[in-house]
Amino acid sequence: MNNNFKFFKKRKVYLKDIYKTLDKKGKLKNAEIKDIKNLDLAGPNDISFFNAVKYLDLLKKSNVKYLIANQKHEKIISKYCYPIFVDNVLKSVAQITNLFYPTSLDDAVDFSLSNPSKHKYIKVKFGKNVLLGKNVKISKNTIIGHNTIIESNVQIGSDCVIGNNVIIKNSVIGKNVRILDGSIIGKKGFGFFPNEEKNYRYPHIGIVKIEDNVEIGSNNTIDRGSVSNTVIGKNTFLDNQVHVAHNVNIGKNCIITAQVGFAGSSKIGNLVNIGGQAGISGHLTIGNNVQIGGGSGVIKNIPDNTKVMGYPAKDIRIFLKDNK
Amino acid sequence: MNNNFKFFKKRKVYLKDIYKTLDKKGKLKNAEIKDIKNLDLAGPNDISFFNAVKYLDLLKKSNVKYLIANQKHEKIISKYCYPIFVDNVLKSVAQITNLFYPTSLDDAVDFSLSNPSKHKYIKVKFGKNVLLGKNVKISKNTIIGHNTIIESNVQIGSDCVIGNNVIIKNSVIGKNVRILDGSIIGKKGFGFFPNEEKNYRYPHIGIVKIEDNVEIGSNNTIDRGSVSNTVIGKNTFLDNQVHVAHNVNIGKNCIITAQVGFAGSSKIGNLVNIGGQAGISGHLTIGNNVQIGGGSGVIKNIPDNTKVMGYPAKDIRIFLKDNK
Amino acid sequence: MNNNFKFFKKRKVYLKDIYKTLDKKGKLKNAEIKDIKNLDLAGPNDISFFNAVKYLDLLKKSNVKYLIANQKHEKIISKYCYPIFVDNVLKSVAQITNLFYPTSLDDAVDFSLSNPSKHKYIKVKFGKNVLLGKNVKISKNTIIGHNTIIESNVQIGSDCVIGNNVIIKNSVIGKNVRILDGSIIGKKGFGFFPNEEKNYRYPHIGIVKIEDNVEIGSNNTIDRGSVSNTVIGKNTFLDNQVHVAHNVNIGKNCIITAQVGFAGSSKIGNLVNIGGQAGISGHLTIGNNVQIGGGSGVIKNIPDNTKVMGYPAKDIRIFLKDNK
Repeated sequence: MNNNFKFFKKRKVYLKDIYKTLDKKGKLKNAEIKDIKNLDLAGPNDISFFNAVKYLDLLKKSNVKYLIANQKHEKIISKYCYPIFVDNVLKSVAQITNLFYPTSLDDAVDFSLSNPSKHKYIKVKFGKNVLLGKNVKISKNTIIGHNTIIESNVQIGSDCVIGNNVIIKNSVIGKNVRILDGSIIGKKGFGFFPNEEKNYRYPHIGIVKIEDNVEIGSNNTIDRGSVSNTVIGKNTFLDNQVHVAHNVNIGKNCIITAQVGFAGSSKIGNLVNIGGQAGISGHLTIGNNVQIGGGSGVIKNIPDNTKVMGYPAKDIRIFLKDNK
Repeated sequence: MNNNFKFFKKRKVYLKDIYKTLDKKGKLKNAEIKDIKNLDLAGPNDISFFNAVKYLDLLKKSNVKYLIANQKHEKIISKYCYPIFVDNVLKSVAQITNLFYPTSLDDAVDFSLSNPSKHKYIKVKFGKNVLLGKNVKISKNTIIGHNTIIESNVQIGSDCVIGNNVIIKNSVIGKNVRILDGSIIGKKGFGFFPNEEKNYRYPHIGIVKIEDNVEIGSNNTIDRGSVSNTVIGKNTFLDNQVHVAHNVNIGKNCIITAQVGFAGSSKIGNLVNIGGQAGISGHLTIGNNVQIGGGSGVIKNIPDNTKVMGYPAKDIRIFLKDNK
Repeated sequence: MNNNFKFFKKRKVYLKDIYKTLDKKGKLKNAEIKDIKNLDLAGPNDISFFNAVKYLDLLKKSNVKYLIANQKHEKIISKYCYPIFVDNVLKSVAQITNLFYPTSLDDAVDFSLSNPSKHKYIKVKFGKNVLLGKNVKISKNTIIGHNTIIESNVQIGSDCVIGNNVIIKNSVIGKNVRILDGSIIGKKGFGFFPNEEKNYRYPHIGIVKIEDNVEIGSNNTIDRGSVSNTVIGKNTFLDNQVHVAHNVNIGKNCIITAQVGFAGSSKIGNLVNIGGQAGISGHLTIGNNVQIGGGSGVIKNIPDNTKVMGYPAKDIRIFLKDNK
């Protein structure tokens, strides 16, 4: 999260606004709060949050002052900061993120789009019926296919081929990237707090970052990050109908076969090869040089240099022995 | 099946037409038959069908006169009605449904579409290249994205956001519903009688009903019902690349994660949470407050308040113990 | 591979061009090489390749002269041909195929597209915003839906219905075929040689061949063949969100339910019925009259007249017994 804030309009926020949003009272009402950030990134004028004891070391190292937390952690945290106690930390974080970034969920429809004839691009070739938003940057020798929509603020590097019927929003794309027909890149992720009458959505202020030489197949869906970014590393290839949820980070030189699905926030190493229809649960760490067999369901971390298969996925030798 | 008949043109049918279609002879040729309905809904001027002994109680309570059935049930049913005996009851029902609703399979292409400029909508905002059919109803504060197609007879409530490249037909959509980019709603289901030269399709006279506050992710496919409707209950959220087959009924406040698939005619309760890539077989009943782990394959009914996982899905404690 | 060469422009190639591409030296530099073909199809003026001892019989029967092979096979093959020795036979084959067919990977974007008004078709009905390439052949009584793209050289038979937002390239389609909304047919397959900086793609000079009376559901992806064709047999029906990889050959009268995935080069018999979300690994042979249960993962060949289920798929009676 650094240069992508321009993707979402940011509002000036005072501590009193935060109190009001969370229905709380407190001191220092007129202090201006710069941003909401994770503990490892937050500075003295930011607000952060604390929702598990395992983050105590991070808190100790941090110079954050304002912290959203739960009363049960009062004893261990209060000497390090001014805590604001709430019942549901993550929901409150969502509310405050929304306060800073009021358009972070506004995926509605970009009505600023127009045909490329109104824009000026050097050595970029456009198909028919292309629609471009405001402040779209496309570098030379890139081709944009028919009926494709590039919403406002997207950046696309040189020598890319974007296919037909593609939709891209909130994304930064490197050089020599191919995105094939029908893929949808950069929509908000599937994160929300269930609520009986009307669910409360989690804000998504991250982007999708696609590095050089990547290929994204047809009819893929790659959601943007909620707080961090969704990243597809250099020279990684995705086949058709792959789903990548918010905050997933896929390394370099990976091969992701058709219909694979990644749940939110998992981190995939380099040189990882995943067979068709495999699923990777959320918040996992998959090491480097890992091979995951087709159809596998991965529900725990996988160390480097491992071959796994099965549901749940286990060492491939054990899988094959168990199924002889 | 009540107010949705306007979706499909209905023909005037006499008993002689039915005889002719089924290549049968019989009495009361000139009796006008009102409709074809399930046993529990059929009135004295409708035709219904009987294909299993378990429906005998329904038949006894019904005042239906005309019944498509198999000779092997002659003894137990003939005192209650005028049966028309056929070899394949379901195929004959399909043929007769087609007789009543000749356009029920005619998904071809809606050539009545035109740009919104020819229509009059109050406070509805349209993207570029939108195509609307005849008799489309869209309520205020709804947004329709670029390149989206809304075919004839669709109803959309207020405060909805329909994304880009969406295709909707044969559907009734509530308030505050979001349908994200690339989803295809309301096409005929995948039901047919295999036949060596040319398969015979099952008619689809149901619709897709999407209740208030629902969100449908990107690149979903939701098929309309064959005889009953396909329903997505209030405040239920579907992630990307989900497939919902014909006649499926999903309850309220459900969370359906990416790449989940529902086979035809299953009934899902309220507050059901389904992990990514899980599959639900056809004709099942899933209770309320059920959690189904990612990647599961559900092949039998699941009672209320249960957590299951695995393929085939079983109690999650057993699944985890078996896979320690 | 016979009449589809017109899909890809072919270059005149001499043996010296092949030496140069592979960074080799050799005799007969000025011999013109007609084409690159599999051993069973190659004639005396073609070049072929040898990458496993099991092909020795084919080589003996063949009258091929020029052969790409590995030094380790020198003894057994050199009396039958002029071998050109390389380290990686398949990669070299890919390079030489590219030499013959320089556009075989050029899936970029077809800029020759224009609206049907510029074309002349008899009794063909077009929706709005249809784009057609050069040399597209569409027979009578066929309907093409809104926003659909048919790229250059595609052939479509009579009485077909192509839905909305469909993209077709490099394909030959029979009579009475329906391709539903959002499907993408004929793009290059997911085949490449991984390489740290930039992967090297396998050429795709095959096509997609769809026979009479086939139905392809919504949001399918069917890739064209690399050297042979991808084939969907007569009267086979595919549901929504199915993925068919390159070179897959599906027989006649098959029923393929939603979200099924086929990895590359598998051969599926006739009358095969595959349940939802099942996956078929690559290079397998599935017999005739086979039933594969929903969610199955098939990783070995299946003989005729078999019912299987499970991951890995096994006889369905064993699967049900194991999971009682």
